[in-house]
Amino acid sequence: MTTNEKVAALQRLMEERGIDTYFVPSADAHQSEYVATYWRARAYISGFTGSAGTFAATKDKAAVWVDGRYFLQGETQTKGTVVELMKIAEPGVPTLEDWILANTPEGGVVGVDGRQIGYAQALKMKEKFAEKHLKLSVAQDLVGEIWEDRPSLPKDKIFEFDAALSGETRVERIERVRAHLAKVNADYYLVAALESSAWLLNYRGNDIHCTPVAYAFTLVGKDTCDFFIDEKKVSAEFRETLEKDGVTVRPYDALPEVLKTLPASTLACDLRLVNQLLYESIPADWKIHKETVDLVAMMKAVKTPAEQENFRKAHVKDGAVMVRFIKWVKDAVKNGETLDEVDVAMHLDQMRCDQENSLGISFDTISGYGENGAIIHYKPEKGTCATLKPEGFLLVDSGAQYLEGTTDITRTIALGPLTDEMKTAYTLVLKGHLALGNACFKEGITGTNLDVLARKPLWDHHLDYKHGTGHGVGFVLSVHEGPQNISFGLNQIPLKPGMVISDEPGYYPTGKFGVRIENLVMVVEDETNEWAKFDRLEPITLCPYEPEAIDLSLMTQEEIDLLNAYHARVRREVEPLLEGDEELVAFLRDQTRPL
Amino acid sequence: MTTNEKVAALQRLMEERGIDTYFVPSADAHQSEYVATYWRARAYISGFTGSAGTFAATKDKAAVWVDGRYFLQGETQTKGTVVELMKIAEPGVPTLEDWILANTPEGGVVGVDGRQIGYAQALKMKEKFAEKHLKLSVAQDLVGEIWEDRPSLPKDKIFEFDAALSGETRVERIERVRAHLAKVNADYYLVAALESSAWLLNYRGNDIHCTPVAYAFTLVGKDTCDFFIDEKKVSAEFRETLEKDGVTVRPYDALPEVLKTLPASTLACDLRLVNQLLYESIPADWKIHKETVDLVAMMKAVKTPAEQENFRKAHVKDGAVMVRFIKWVKDAVKNGETLDEVDVAMHLDQMRCDQENSLGISFDTISGYGENGAIIHYKPEKGTCATLKPEGFLLVDSGAQYLEGTTDITRTIALGPLTDEMKTAYTLVLKGHLALGNACFKEGITGTNLDVLARKPLWDHHLDYKHGTGHGVGFVLSVHEGPQNISFGLNQIPLKPGMVISDEPGYYPTGKFGVRIENLVMVVEDETNEWAKFDRLEPITLCPYEPEAIDLSLMTQEEIDLLNAYHARVRREVEPLLEGDEELVAFLRDQTRPL
Repeated sequence: MTTNEKVAALQRLMEERGIDTYFVPSADAHQSEYVATYWRARAYISGFTGSAGTFAATKDKAAVWVDGRYFLQGETQTKGTVVELMKIAEPGVPTLEDWILANTPEGGVVGVDGRQIGYAQALKMKEKFAEKHLKLSVAQDLVGEIWEDRPSLPKDKIFEFDAALSGETRVERIERVRAHLAKVNADYYLVAALESSAWLLNYRGNDIHCTPVAYAFTLVGKDTCDFFIDEKKVSAEFRETLEKDGVTVRPYDALPEVLKTLPASTLACDLRLVNQLLYESIPADWKIHKETVDLVAMMKAVKTPAEQENFRKAHVKDGAVMVRFIKWVKDAVKNGETLDEVDVAMHLDQMRCDQENSLGISFDTISGYGENGAIIHYKPEKGTCATLKPEGFLLVDSGAQYLEGTTDITRTIALGPLTDEMKTAYTLVLKGHLALGNACFKEGITGTNLDVLARKPLWDHHLDYKHGTGHGVGFVLSVHEGPQNISFGLNQIPLKPGMVISDEPGYYPTGKFGVRIENLVMVVEDETNEWAKFDRLEPITLCPYEPEAIDLSLMTQEEIDLLNAYHARVRREVEPLLEGDEELVAFLRDQTRPL
Repeated sequence: MTTNEKVAALQRLMEERGIDTYFVPSADAHQSEYVATYWRARAYISGFTGSAGTFAATKDKAAVWVDGRYFLQGETQTKGTVVELMKIAEPGVPTLEDWILANTPEGGVVGVDGRQIGYAQALKMKEKFAEKHLKLSVAQDLVGEIWEDRPSLPKDKIFEFDAALSGETRVERIERVRAHLAKVNADYYLVAALESSAWLLNYRGNDIHCTPVAYAFTLVGKDTCDFFIDEKKVSAEFRETLEKDGVTVRPYDALPEVLKTLPASTLACDLRLVNQLLYESIPADWKIHKETVDLVAMMKAVKTPAEQENFRKAHVKDGAVMVRFIKWVKDAVKNGETLDEVDVAMHLDQMRCDQENSLGISFDTISGYGENGAIIHYKPEKGTCATLKPEGFLLVDSGAQYLEGTTDITRTIALGPLTDEMKTAYTLVLKGHLALGNACFKEGITGTNLDVLARKPLWDHHLDYKHGTGHGVGFVLSVHEGPQNISFGLNQIPLKPGMVISDEPGYYPTGKFGVRIENLVMVVEDETNEWAKFDRLEPITLCPYEPEAIDLSLMTQEEIDLLNAYHARVRREVEPLLEGDEELVAFLRDQTRPL
């Protein structure tokens, strides 16, 4: 079917069911960052395949909302169809909600697949729609009914994640949840986020690109633990292990039924993670204890000592990969090889996949040469992407999933001569990156308090970058995991020893080049004295910066000392993995030479 | 009457009125920082005269709660009386609320003068007291009934504050409040804070120590403006001016009556500023629109261009006073004069009062020599205070109220030789003070984001200070005025051009010495470009730092440049006021010599 045929089919179905307006979000049933192809109903119905966007239709109109990253792609993909392109935040473009309000008759029905919309968004919509008495109906999946070759939900088996790697057994973790239930006087805890179930029950899966999780819910009771997952994904052996640990495996969609069989109770959960269909299935006589932040997200944000140790090991391995990669790309370009941005990304991805205990990459590699480095969410495509030249900057933001931990690193690599503007930009970004990445602070403050350390050198020059400074990182889970972050927007979550977070300031002069420098850093305990208990950030990423790009005259001695100390550490920890490759060792030593 | 007699009289009254427990806070009816002596009922009944504390009595017990600053004074003043001293936050000491709960019979009545307790505190108490079904009764002032020689409420006349100084007429300001009423769909705005009425109606008063305000409420309607104040305080001439501007003068306590005569309406106000007695007098059929922050507080936080210009003028004048004072105290001590901390404070206060357009000091001068400098809220007293010696540091934190603006400055002055520890401490504090006081930042961020700039040099050495970094400052009003501040605690109020705020990091090694360096800084507009609209902080305080105390080896060249640029500006702006006094000019030049 063409897009127009699909839209017409949807509109016929809407009429049959008495639905005036139907919209299709991009989410899965767990508010995940990446989703399985099964969930890409919006791409199917609208023809627009970008990672984010929302489609909506009335009986005679259709439109898709896309953000600034996707204006061009959206135009190409909706051209010649009945789907109107709505450029989010452009002047005169209505929001999805306003468009629905304007185009739905008084008292009409607005439909959506309630699995794809979160409780909070639904609540906001219902409030807004009240002025025209619109009803929000969430109990149908109309696109699913017309999507003949819809991909099935993923079927890969989950696997046990060794408690020696995580440092805590599932029984211990479940008990921690139960202790919380007792504390807040609730009977059940609903674990809705995919990473949280995987972390809690010490397993990993393969349902989602770059993120080793599986579609599942977990319901922890005072002496029960129900694990809702496609039962085919659980081997008989692992099922037995789980059951021995008091975990009952049940069908993925059985949660609403199970709730109905239980006596009226108090359910604790972070409603932001619960989809509206599931929310509406909670029996009316149950009470809900709203968590401000998902308890399991809070628990897993603070890494266990074993997770910390493994995280560090992963970064030694990944550092060696990066050193090897940087030498390879520099040499290749110098030797006149023809390489484009995609070649480089694929080479790096392959190197990571070849590592021992590799579970693949942790997100799609960003490889931006020259002016493409300035496009923050750049994704190179074969055919249109740039070819590398022996000059200027290549920005590579990439990461891996190993059994020992998740990595996320950005290096801005000099492929040849640099302009003074490039060196100044690199040095200002590096100054902020070093100040933040080695910050010492009174315990209990948040990333909101520290963001300025990374931005100050840029702000002092009236420059800035238009993204956050740091995101939390999961342990062999999602590479973007809260609740902590580093941003000037107010975040109430204190930084605690054991948390891992990125430190990634940048600078992106449009049409010229991009600079970003990113390490993962860990919150570690520092001195305690009469003034305070101090914590500090310590880089765990181990890879040289770009000496060619540093203008020492812009740096203080303190900053140069930090830089040299980091480089000495990189040399000490990574060199043993390069043993036997004299040229590589020489390259590492040169890149980390004292400045 | 002795304290015991007073307490017994109170207990008799309580019994007559059927009140089981009665407590006496320190507040006035407007949640002011300083209060008139009329309001010092807690000092009267308990004998404890400190600035903060709460008294409570049951039929056979009496106690007073004091904080750490006042443990010693509280002991002395309650000794030999029936009043038990409750040291707040010490182990085993119950809170006021817990004590009331434990000592009041089930279903009993807890009484308080409802003018002295804010809506928010009352709400919290009522929630807590519910578990024992206690009733909170706010309609009596029992201490007032037994306090025979109670000071009357202040009677000084208010005076018109020239609109040329404030840059805006009262009519314009009232219209801004009315525009807000229209926006939030409310009928009346209740102005409860004393500073807010004074600012809104362009007057100043003399009711409160150090703060030129008068006891008053203002009620702004869509086409009315009622000003509730002791009518004797308003001259016939000023009353006529006010009435010409549409402001009706009414008796101070007539607000509840006026509300009753009006048709049911919507009242907008910041309930945190409304006392419980007044809150309970709002007719039951009125709606309340709760402001997150008092609108007038938000308005007056952003100074008008005229206020900004005047603020700067006040600081040139005050800078000259400070230079004169610093030279005087250094010379006097060097020449062997016997001076104690109080002598020094009185001398400085007198110099300020002698200035043209002086309205007195803006808070009680802190003058701490040697180890007393480490007591953050130190108040020297004749007889017990320290005598100055020609060595070490004298910390002086002081300020003035001039018609042109309010000042607040701390300088740590070397009276003679300093130890290396002192110099290191001074330099670290100075580094943070300079970094914050010259910060450049993207518009819209808050003081929460900037606090770390002031603390970083100390935190890097595992040192800290246990107070906020900066408070807002009123324009010829309270020296401590929100809603903006600089602190690592989360504050949602963005810094806006025209705001004035203090920049006062410190370091206080107990038993040794104290360092604090404080300027007032103004938020000013900086460059706007493709990256952001930038604002920055600019010091408006003009007084040399202490060159003797600076260890240049700890400073970066950038910091030395900032220091020298500031000193050059101080010299340029203050020297003209010292003309004719050769020695003083030479002193200023020496103190501001390029380093």
